[in-house]
Amino acid sequence: MGVVVNLEDGKKPQASISALVELTASDMSSVNELILSKAGSNVTMIPEVANHLISSGGKRLRPMMTLASARLFGYEGDNHVKLAMSVEFMHTATLLHDDVVDESGMRRGKKTARMIWGNQASVLVGDFLLGQAFRVMVDVGSMDALDILSNAAAVIAEGEVLQLSVAKNLETTEDEYRDVIKAKTAALFSAAAEVGPIIAKATRTDRAAMRSYGTNLGLAFQLVDDALDYGGSTADLGKNVGDDFREGKVTLPVILSYRRGTQDERAFWRSAIESGEADDAALDKALGLMKRHNAIADTISRARQFGDIARDALAPLPKSRHKTALLDVIDFCISRVV
Amino acid sequence: MGVVVNLEDGKKPQASISALVELTASDMSSVNELILSKAGSNVTMIPEVANHLISSGGKRLRPMMTLASARLFGYEGDNHVKLAMSVEFMHTATLLHDDVVDESGMRRGKKTARMIWGNQASVLVGDFLLGQAFRVMVDVGSMDALDILSNAAAVIAEGEVLQLSVAKNLETTEDEYRDVIKAKTAALFSAAAEVGPIIAKATRTDRAAMRSYGTNLGLAFQLVDDALDYGGSTADLGKNVGDDFREGKVTLPVILSYRRGTQDERAFWRSAIESGEADDAALDKALGLMKRHNAIADTISRARQFGDIARDALAPLPKSRHKTALLDVIDFCISRVV
Repeated sequence: MGVVVNLEDGKKPQASISALVELTASDMSSVNELILSKAGSNVTMIPEVANHLISSGGKRLRPMMTLASARLFGYEGDNHVKLAMSVEFMHTATLLHDDVVDESGMRRGKKTARMIWGNQASVLVGDFLLGQAFRVMVDVGSMDALDILSNAAAVIAEGEVLQLSVAKNLETTEDEYRDVIKAKTAALFSAAAEVGPIIAKATRTDRAAMRSYGTNLGLAFQLVDDALDYGGSTADLGKNVGDDFREGKVTLPVILSYRRGTQDERAFWRSAIESGEADDAALDKALGLMKRHNAIADTISRARQFGDIARDALAPLPKSRHKTALLDVIDFCISRVV
Repeated sequence: MGVVVNLEDGKKPQASISALVELTASDMSSVNELILSKAGSNVTMIPEVANHLISSGGKRLRPMMTLASARLFGYEGDNHVKLAMSVEFMHTATLLHDDVVDESGMRRGKKTARMIWGNQASVLVGDFLLGQAFRVMVDVGSMDALDILSNAAAVIAEGEVLQLSVAKNLETTEDEYRDVIKAKTAALFSAAAEVGPIIAKATRTDRAAMRSYGTNLGLAFQLVDDALDYGGSTADLGKNVGDDFREGKVTLPVILSYRRGTQDERAFWRSAIESGEADDAALDKALGLMKRHNAIADTISRARQFGDIARDALAPLPKSRHKTALLDVIDFCISRVV
């Protein structure tokens, strides 16, 4: 696949999603209304738990992608709002279940739902939101959109189970890890981007372009997240540095450091990741090893490559404000880390 | 609603589902093949967990209902097999999540999946099966069937959350409890019965008949389960008697005993259910109080009434082997307890 960085034309990347936010602002307020309505229930615990997560300051990147990718192909109805809501509910349900599976205490600087309402409520409200997501997408009436989104739901869960079974396994190859994040993160980005052209009745070529854009953006997004968890390229030790390390998660920076390390270094990684000896001193040592083996820099370089593929996927599409806004998202994702 | 017990015509109820099993045997073997295929994954933990539950000796009542209710209206294609599989996967996903939520150790005399593979795998494999259920039902291509089943998925989860929020609350009214079991149990019975006439392109009246049959059969089924957990009418202390009691579940036998009890008796229920003082002596006392207040007998009597409504729902349909088999299921459900 040809990878060309389209920055030579003098246009500096805008490391911001403000164009996307602006273009989708009106539609997003409809999405937000629908979210509040569909997270509503006489069972008061449901809106409580749902709103905790929904209002917790996520960027809403996925629903904005759905909205923009529909408008990009001239869609003028309002089913894109319903699909955007479904995508956000699928994402929210995944977060609720992830926090239970990872036994997480904090997300985006706030207590996780499971710490406030318990694992039980997190599992069941996640199920409810997934059910509502399907209800609303059925309401849209597009078999192709249903096909893409139900497929994504199964693939995401399969990816999560795969991650569980490779968990703490330092022998995981880079390829295997890419399979995990392709399923657990990139599948929803891909579906969010593809349902737009579907309801706009765009061509199969256009669908394929948006699918490729979403998949590769999702891969880049996840790898940047992985790098950021170790401080990114500046090794700037922000508040959340080391969360993955302390939880014993095998992400790409760890995989690269382990494979490139000496026997002694590998023994260190085993004690840290597999045996959980992951205190602050161990984190310092891990950061040193990652620097020595270029593990963070190479993780970011992989992310850039996926970003480039996403950019090329959109290249044949005519110039438009929506296209530019979607290209900006790629730069934004990468710029979080550099 | 008129409730007439149609037993006066000299036909003794056959307390068996053997007619249903026989009529659906060939279709069920297709369902089983599809189940094995769709529970398959390269992620080996998925088929392991799924097969543990799928092969654990459930009666497969729900998928058989879907198969029979399609054939009842003359359906001759094979989409009913796909829908039956979807219904069974939805049920299996619910069981996996329920066991996590209830922290259950045993189900049907076997260790629960979460005791073998952990809560994490149970949550995620449940999500995977739900995703596969939607994939397969999308494949069927019936918007009406999708509407019914996605609606059921959301209602079931809502019912589970409702149950969580009324958990250990002895002030729960019989009405509130019926709302809980209507959502968490009867909704899937109802959907399983209604998708048959939908794909058979039966009339709206037929759909309504099957929906009513499913809902009321589901209510009867759950109430009989509740009564059986206290030994049923014979107070036969089988191996699983008292599970609900020990878990502090507020079911109809408890609700009736509590409401009909003296001040002292209510204090006993509070210590047992709310404070968890539910040892064998407490269970003995609970059984005595239930007997004194006719709580088990009246729970069974409610179940009978719902069974009668289910029977009446099918009454206008022409006589057929499938109709008889579905009526037998009602008798079978009730006969488990008498």
